[in-house]
Amino acid sequence: MFKRIDHVALVVPDLDQALELYRETFGLEPTFREHNEEQGIEEAGFVVGDAHVDLLSSIRPDSVIAGFLLKRGPGLHHIGLEVEDLDACLEQVRERGLRLTGNEPRQGTGGSRIAFIHPKNLLGTMLELVERPEDHQK
Amino acid sequence: MFKRIDHVALVVPDLDQALELYRETFGLEPTFREHNEEQGIEEAGFVVGDAHVDLLSSIRPDSVIAGFLLKRGPGLHHIGLEVEDLDACLEQVRERGLRLTGNEPRQGTGGSRIAFIHPKNLLGTMLELVERPEDHQK
Repeated sequence: MFKRIDHVALVVPDLDQALELYRETFGLEPTFREHNEEQGIEEAGFVVGDAHVDLLSSIRPDSVIAGFLLKRGPGLHHIGLEVEDLDACLEQVRERGLRLTGNEPRQGTGGSRIAFIHPKNLLGTMLELVERPEDHQK
Repeated sequence: MFKRIDHVALVVPDLDQALELYRETFGLEPTFREHNEEQGIEEAGFVVGDAHVDLLSSIRPDSVIAGFLLKRGPGLHHIGLEVEDLDACLEQVRERGLRLTGNEPRQGTGGSRIAFIHPKNLLGTMLELVERPEDHQK
């Protein structure tokens, strides 16, 4: 069902501070940076092989990421796995009684379609399913 | 510095229960299962693309994983990134004042050499650096 690890996402308290730390320590430069007003999130990411590592930060006290920081502190947030056919995958997941977060599937970055499986249904791990468009360049 | 995401590791409360959940939900079968008496850990993993997703469980109340479960509950534990030259990478990391966990580097599975950067030094994220032998089959 899973083609590859698409990305791993980390929550950081402050995006600029985190980018500076990753730059100084590992020589990593972010390949994108996005401000998502609707979700109250600012994120940036590094390419690692054919995947990426994303840093997520909160820009509003009522964002999902602010809630995560309060409850668990900074650190690993979710893992994104690429699937061939998101709808078929979601049908299977729902048949097994697993719950998705929010109204799924929805639009992700780069023309992707995404859905999140709630961590309560997966032993504490938040899993994002990602369907990439056919012309996606890894 | 980083060649690819080598693996992502999750802590689960019970390995058999977790494997059954992943099998039923995603049709995933583990490609390995190991019992590590010294570390008090039992683990199993799935191949996903050229990487793997590992499930870690505790077999002793004094293991590192038991401590993690008590403190944070089950969920994402660390991300493993492959590096070309572990010693050169560790020199750079130490120069920046980051602390490693335990006596590093040490032997990992499949002839690998590994080291962990302490999450306190990386904004809450535990990062494993992995050097694979040259003949490693991904």
